[in-house]
Amino acid sequence: MSDLETARQCADAMLAADRASAALGIAIAIPAPGRAEATMTVRDDMVNGFGVLHGGLTFSLADTAFAFACNAYDQLSFAASAHIDFLRPARSGDVLTASAVEDYRGRRSGYYTVEVRNQDDALVALFRGRSTNSGDSIISP
Amino acid sequence: MSDLETARQCADAMLAADRASAALGIAIAIPAPGRAEATMTVRDDMVNGFGVLHGGLTFSLADTAFAFACNAYDQLSFAASAHIDFLRPARSGDVLTASAVEDYRGRRSGYYTVEVRNQDDALVALFRGRSTNSGDSIISP
Amino acid sequence: MSDLETARQCADAMLAADRASAALGIAIAIPAPGRAEATMTVRDDMVNGFGVLHGGLTFSLADTAFAFACNAYDQLSFAASAHIDFLRPARSGDVLTASAVEDYRGRRSGYYTVEVRNQDDALVALFRGRSTNSGDSIISP
Amino acid sequence: MSDLETARQCADAMLAADRASAALGIAIAIPAPGRAEATMTVRDDMVNGFGVLHGGLTFSLADTAFAFACNAYDQLSFAASAHIDFLRPARSGDVLTASAVEDYRGRRSGYYTVEVRNQDDALVALFRGRSTNSGDSIISP
Repeated sequence: MSDLETARQCADAMLAADRASAALGIAIAIPAPGRAEATMTVRDDMVNGFGVLHGGLTFSLADTAFAFACNAYDQLSFAASAHIDFLRPARSGDVLTASAVEDYRGRRSGYYTVEVRNQDDALVALFRGRSTNSGDSIISP
Repeated sequence: MSDLETARQCADAMLAADRASAALGIAIAIPAPGRAEATMTVRDDMVNGFGVLHGGLTFSLADTAFAFACNAYDQLSFAASAHIDFLRPARSGDVLTASAVEDYRGRRSGYYTVEVRNQDDALVALFRGRSTNSGDSIISP
Repeated sequence: MSDLETARQCADAMLAADRASAALGIAIAIPAPGRAEATMTVRDDMVNGFGVLHGGLTFSLADTAFAFACNAYDQLSFAASAHIDFLRPARSGDVLTASAVEDYRGRRSGYYTVEVRNQDDALVALFRGRSTNSGDSIISP
Repeated sequence: MSDLETARQCADAMLAADRASAALGIAIAIPAPGRAEATMTVRDDMVNGFGVLHGGLTFSLADTAFAFACNAYDQLSFAASAHIDFLRPARSGDVLTASAVEDYRGRRSGYYTVEVRNQDDALVALFRGRSTNSGDSIISP
């Protein structure tokens, strides 16, 4: 199995059970191992008391891309920490894409950057996540 | 109007329009200006592909407490950035409480720490947020 | 040996070899296990091109307090990551005190908050550090 | 004056007064506006109680590269916050290079990533900084 096939099979296994991402309407693409793109359309029920996308849901989209990027190697990894900078509000109807890339991957920890952009390619949020490798596999028996 | 009344009226105004927090089933209490408690029960549709609460929703709960803590002064404030450390997984049925306290509040920025604990008082996540003051009011005409 | 004696012996062992903190003129006090205070007077050769204390040296003071706080248990711990918010500039002649407290200590990681204040007790920087336990001892043979 | 000339004149003006970076033996190169490289050789007096480069001085090197990257536009900018992940220790005699790139630059804030690598090109630390624009100029009268 190629590295990309492994990454995609890990993603499929994760997606099959991921009710939270499904409830948010998030779609996933895996362009390469260590990368992931997550797309979400902002719905009316995602908006906070100031009429903009709840920051927690911006984070959820970025965190989802991060999770799929760091789980590409059939080594089950968890988010250990993350930092997010909110640069621009998003509103109902906006289509957001979170693109995760791998900055560094060590034996135990991985470091990822995720950019969240809207349909005009403007940067909505900048996210950095650190993953830890649990030692378990995702798709191997 | 006392400071606590102001804080609670700001919270009421925000809650009335906050569809995202409502969709997550988050309840809010304002014990004092600059503090907030947000409570959420983990539902089946909040769980990710590894059977634990999606990190984005843990963040959403903490971020909600942060938003209500920093908007206590009738000065509309937005989350500018946040950092979260995930310490312990949460599972369906867990009842989580996020408690936000103010570390420092300057003229333009505020700094808040939020602890997310489960029903056994174990620490699930440690969150730090920075807010920026927009200069607008929340409840004043 | 009491917990406080252990903490202080760990600090003494670290200090004896810590040329970097000595070169910065940093003094250390250990009020309790998991806490540390580091004090430094800003010198002319610590100032950057804008006439204020180099942010790296503000960080160094906070990081030193953090290191002494997390190494109180005779378990050699390293700084794994840190975040700093710079709130106020410091200038030559200012006397800064960094006070580290433990937010949470797990088996492998510890989380600490450090406040850096000047001689007027004004907050100069807010620092958060995560330590990892190496499994080695500091003072035990 | 070209953008690169402006960036280099800003760097020269900053360097002329930067006693802290000089005391650390840091050399600066400006390959392009919004980028900077800072180089430092680890000295014996930079080592902490565990025989490795004091984390505060690793941070200082990265922070210096960040400061020169964000001050390329003749708009005096300060470090507002920074996050660092320590990936690998450095030891006396190591030659470290911190390379800063601009992730995003808005009207008021800029976001930069700095990688610190040793003489073997191994990643020692990953740094992210946010700058704020003061509105003042650096080299204009």
